Amino acid sequence: MEEQHVSKAVIRRLPRYYRFLGDLLAEGVERISSGELSERMGVTASQIRQDLNQFGGFGQQGYGYRVRFLYDEIEHIMGLDQTHHVILIGAGNLGSALAGYTNYRKRNFIIEAVFDKDPGKIGKTLEGLEILSVDTLEQYLSDHRVDIAAIAIPREEAVSVAERLVRSGVRAIWNFAHTDLEVPDDVVVENVHLSESLMSLSYKAKMNREKPDGKKTGKH
Amino acid sequence: MEEQHVSKAVIRRLPRYYRFLGDLLAEGVERISSGELSERMGVTASQIRQDLNQFGGFGQQGYGYRVRFLYDEIEHIMGLDQTHHVILIGAGNLGSALAGYTNYRKRNFIIEAVFDKDPGKIGKTLEGLEILSVDTLEQYLSDHRVDIAAIAIPREEAVSVAERLVRSGVRAIWNFAHTDLEVPDDVVVENVHLSESLMSLSYKAKMNREKPDGKKTGKH
Repeated sequence: MEEQHVSKAVIRRLPRYYRFLGDLLAEGVERISSGELSERMGVTASQIRQDLNQFGGFGQQGYGYRVRFLYDEIEHIMGLDQTHHVILIGAGNLGSALAGYTNYRKRNFIIEAVFDKDPGKIGKTLEGLEILSVDTLEQYLSDHRVDIAAIAIPREEAVSVAERLVRSGVRAIWNFAHTDLEVPDDVVVENVHLSESLMSLSYKAKMNREKPDGKKTGKH
Repeated sequence: MEEQHVSKAVIRRLPRYYRFLGDLLAEGVERISSGELSERMGVTASQIRQDLNQFGGFGQQGYGYRVRFLYDEIEHIMGLDQTHHVILIGAGNLGSALAGYTNYRKRNFIIEAVFDKDPGKIGKTLEGLEILSVDTLEQYLSDHRVDIAAIAIPREEAVSVAERLVRSGVRAIWNFAHTDLEVPDDVVVENVHLSESLMSLSYKAKMNREKPDGKKTGKH
């Protein structure tokens, strides 16, 4: 399979396909037609065929998609079949929420260390892990393989912590701080800017109030 | 100003402009050229001019943008100059993180009630608010104006809670549950699917490892 030929737009949609296929597997569904998948996902059947046929030969006319095969294929494309060694910077409310997010473990994202700068937190445990001083970050990184660092600290501190992570070889950052991070070309960042999401909701709600009719699609 | 003429792509970029303009205001900067803003934001000056000129007449050649005016204008377009009455469903780790997210208050998003179904949580306080039983949701909604409901509960429960919210007149949902919500045409939903964000990071990290060279832009 030529993974590099999968378009960016399809890649963005893969997590959602993966979620629906996972639900189907949990229900014991082995095959599904593009029509049925279309109904469940609220996108057109032709969109589904166009997206999934990029992987080549999954769907057969009148036969449907093999759910497990497609699920595994997407898992592989997304890199979800590998174990990711994750550390978490910030043991506040958001950090605790992230640590408790059990999906991680199911999907091979394993939080192996938690750091904070608050002396009141250091030494306590979060989800079974001792909270370490962020002063020991470099030492930890020199001793352990870390694939992803999640940053859940205030923006004022996030930039310098990101610099330290990158200097110590971390190549993927999941950033929850409300700021952009400047990183070298070989480091990837995925931002979750909650306040920007809330602003988008505010905007959509405002447009919704102001628009003359209520025509919208029903799935979100 | 013709707000409806602002393109969707620009709308998606407005929160980021808003953040940078807010930083400039905090630094006491009154005017900024598209060139300077370009350098700070890591986008081209021509992109900035193209985006911001949609609002008409903000930038003047050799004079720059009026930071406060542009900031206020974006605030208004996004509906951020209004007070939003917010309720939170779910007082777990993620709900606590959301309640503690002080940005809300600064931006006129005020969490006024928190609900949970756990008897061990009901009656306790979260950020100064008594946690109410989710059984009393309908009563609360009939007595109070609610602009936005944030859903931070497991996916199994999110769908039925969303239905109850909508039946009681809530028209905007900030959804953190790992599921899609089916809502009527006059209800807006903004999803924050953390696991999908993590999958995107996994994919980007995988591509990053596999690509032959390291050419990427530096701002994220």
